[in-house]
Amino acid sequence: MSTLITPRTLSGFRDYLPEVMLAREKVLDKARHVYRSYGFTPIDTPAAEALEILLGKGGDESDKLVYRVRSARSEKEEMGLRFDLTVPFARFAAQYISELGTPFKRYAMGPVWRGERPGHGRYREFWQCDFDTIGTTSNAADIETALVISDLFAAIGFERFEVRINNRLLLNGLLELYGLADRGVPLLRSLDKLPKIGRDKVIEEMVKEAAVTAEQAGRVLDLAETTGTNEEVLNRVEGFFTATPNAKAAEGIRRLRELLEVGAAVGIPDGRFRIDLSICRGLDYYTGMIYETFLTDLPGIGSVCSGGRYDNLASLYTKQVLPGVGASLGLDRLVAAMEELEHPLLTGQKTPAEVLVVQFDSSRLADYQRAASRLREVGIPVEVYPDAKKVGQQLAYAEKRGFKLAVIAGTTEFEKGVWNVKALAKREETAVTDAELVERISELLRPNWV
Amino acid sequence: MSTLITPRTLSGFRDYLPEVMLAREKVLDKARHVYRSYGFTPIDTPAAEALEILLGKGGDESDKLVYRVRSARSEKEEMGLRFDLTVPFARFAAQYISELGTPFKRYAMGPVWRGERPGHGRYREFWQCDFDTIGTTSNAADIETALVISDLFAAIGFERFEVRINNRLLLNGLLELYGLADRGVPLLRSLDKLPKIGRDKVIEEMVKEAAVTAEQAGRVLDLAETTGTNEEVLNRVEGFFTATPNAKAAEGIRRLRELLEVGAAVGIPDGRFRIDLSICRGLDYYTGMIYETFLTDLPGIGSVCSGGRYDNLASLYTKQVLPGVGASLGLDRLVAAMEELEHPLLTGQKTPAEVLVVQFDSSRLADYQRAASRLREVGIPVEVYPDAKKVGQQLAYAEKRGFKLAVIAGTTEFEKGVWNVKALAKREETAVTDAELVERISELLRPNWV
Repeated sequence: MSTLITPRTLSGFRDYLPEVMLAREKVLDKARHVYRSYGFTPIDTPAAEALEILLGKGGDESDKLVYRVRSARSEKEEMGLRFDLTVPFARFAAQYISELGTPFKRYAMGPVWRGERPGHGRYREFWQCDFDTIGTTSNAADIETALVISDLFAAIGFERFEVRINNRLLLNGLLELYGLADRGVPLLRSLDKLPKIGRDKVIEEMVKEAAVTAEQAGRVLDLAETTGTNEEVLNRVEGFFTATPNAKAAEGIRRLRELLEVGAAVGIPDGRFRIDLSICRGLDYYTGMIYETFLTDLPGIGSVCSGGRYDNLASLYTKQVLPGVGASLGLDRLVAAMEELEHPLLTGQKTPAEVLVVQFDSSRLADYQRAASRLREVGIPVEVYPDAKKVGQQLAYAEKRGFKLAVIAGTTEFEKGVWNVKALAKREETAVTDAELVERISELLRPNWV
Repeated sequence: MSTLITPRTLSGFRDYLPEVMLAREKVLDKARHVYRSYGFTPIDTPAAEALEILLGKGGDESDKLVYRVRSARSEKEEMGLRFDLTVPFARFAAQYISELGTPFKRYAMGPVWRGERPGHGRYREFWQCDFDTIGTTSNAADIETALVISDLFAAIGFERFEVRINNRLLLNGLLELYGLADRGVPLLRSLDKLPKIGRDKVIEEMVKEAAVTAEQAGRVLDLAETTGTNEEVLNRVEGFFTATPNAKAAEGIRRLRELLEVGAAVGIPDGRFRIDLSICRGLDYYTGMIYETFLTDLPGIGSVCSGGRYDNLASLYTKQVLPGVGASLGLDRLVAAMEELEHPLLTGQKTPAEVLVVQFDSSRLADYQRAASRLREVGIPVEVYPDAKKVGQQLAYAEKRGFKLAVIAGTTEFEKGVWNVKALAKREETAVTDAELVERISELLRPNWV
């Protein structure tokens, strides 16, 4: 007898068991539905790309995260696994945009891989769910991005969440005002650390890394830390530029104001969009609107959906300038948060089926499958137990998995033309005629349907 | 200015553009729905597994197909990309079955990777959609597998397809009868070539490879080539064993008969299940029922959903014996067939949205998004054009993507409180009051709804 191989997952990789997977599929389904409802169309790209496509996007450290893939047939092709969905989308856009035309709105959902050290909540394989509008600089697309994020979390079943919004044009305007337009990148990198290291340390770092005076750094922080209602924040920021009007800042303010107006017009609840001039997402990739999304009851896990506007998506692959805006839902972080918050989409069920048809008498399989088939026809998922084991054993199975109803019939019931329908949680059993089976089970499962 | 990188996909890999991706998502959605309707629950496993899990499953040739994955941080871990969903499921089952309990019904959908030479319709990355029932030897699970396949293709919108079914027990019974039980594997491998090389060559090969006489090989082929109605085939096969009853063959016949009976009882159309004793799927992995699925109008592409019963899923990883039955939908082959057959799920649309709201006047964005929002609330997907370009340009965009309706309003319409609703195919335009907008658009899009 040969030795057994220990079944295991690789470090940083994981399996999804039924309960969590059912929740993941629900979230993906909601995301797909919301993205589509705004006219975003699905696309897909391969897991593997040529290394030249993947490398050099964020320096040596970033390149080290890219998994190399090699065929055992020892081909020369240098391949790697994608580390996000943005780089493949940039490559895709360059390749097909003349065929697709602009504006082009796409969503993509799938796993990405990063060879990082695994840690609490940090995996080497995780899912992203991105949506982007490219080929337009219009604020209409920026506004829509915020509406999509709001609809997305509402569809998943969240009420208590906040989309924090900023616009880089404000900071850029301020830097122009102080003649610091060329220090944007190091200033943003320092500013991004504000929640972690606090104002004083950020100023210290700005002075050191961006060669600004402490006073100038202070002004940047004054802008970032402006607080109040959305209207108060915008009014105060306008105040920064009263003496010396600045076109960039004015455009940033106009865009934020219009976002709030349209949001209110379509009925986005008060407080859902919050102007927060401190969010900046570190990356110099973003050039306009910035979005982060926080769950009110679990702010500590960080943003669960982030994005922004960029000037040019695919400059590495095409001369065609493709400005755009988009955001990415972090599926794994969100599902982890939902587990922690005991979100109602995590039902505790381990099966998508609601009804178990008990196999009491194996010679009656046709009757059991026929009853199941009638229920499936009206959209009720039904499992028929595969073996004619003891009824108690089959009911224990049903309870463990989270079925709602069990349907049982043996010789006596078949003679009478009835089914015993058992509500598993209440342990109530009623006899239902065969003709009434579908109607009665529908009523039991959907008591609130009219 | 730096040189552009040529955007391209790797040889054997491909992108999915909107039109095909929309069809793929519909097929995946139908498959998910049908699998769930029978109580199969989703699970997911990583793309990468330890090499020791992946290698040695089908000899050296098979091992060469496995893509090796390596972290640039030069870790020792030997990893590979999964080449199917069965090996990861076996590993998964061994790891969690005591927690999950049996019977366990799962589905899994995702890409798999094989470093094969790419060719017409053969890619290095392709999707599988598997469902399996493990932990039972019951014929109820075998029968259900056939019902699932039938429901699956009906749900995708096929009427003309055939599930061909065999049971290995018949052949095993015949081999016992002739004292050839130990020649099963080479005989199956030769038999599998029947459609390609014909009867005479198969007999020749059987004589050579399985060390049987030409007469014995002829008997095996007589069994495999038995034709007629399902009942005729089963009666003739019974005839093979009249003189010397054989328990295996009798069980095989009983199982096939019961499958046909239950199929008829649940209303599977005549001719959908066809007993075909020539299908054997080469692999010695299968031990009982065998399934292949052919599209009547495109039989040449081969089976689009195949599977069978196996004695022990995870013997490499656990001592627990896990018999089971399942099948796998080949998504890419099916979608290719659908394209060739101009299947109605391939609508020619390049957008999931049905309505385009034209942006006539950029200062009215709130009105456009509010109208869109009201339509989305009743489940109608709506895109708002991001820029206030010329109306003709926006309508050309809508026609190219396959939108059904365009909704237009400028100053005059806003003054009158109406929207112009344009049916793009018919080029008919009607004015609709703002209050009636949702109702009228619903009617236009769903004329057959009551």
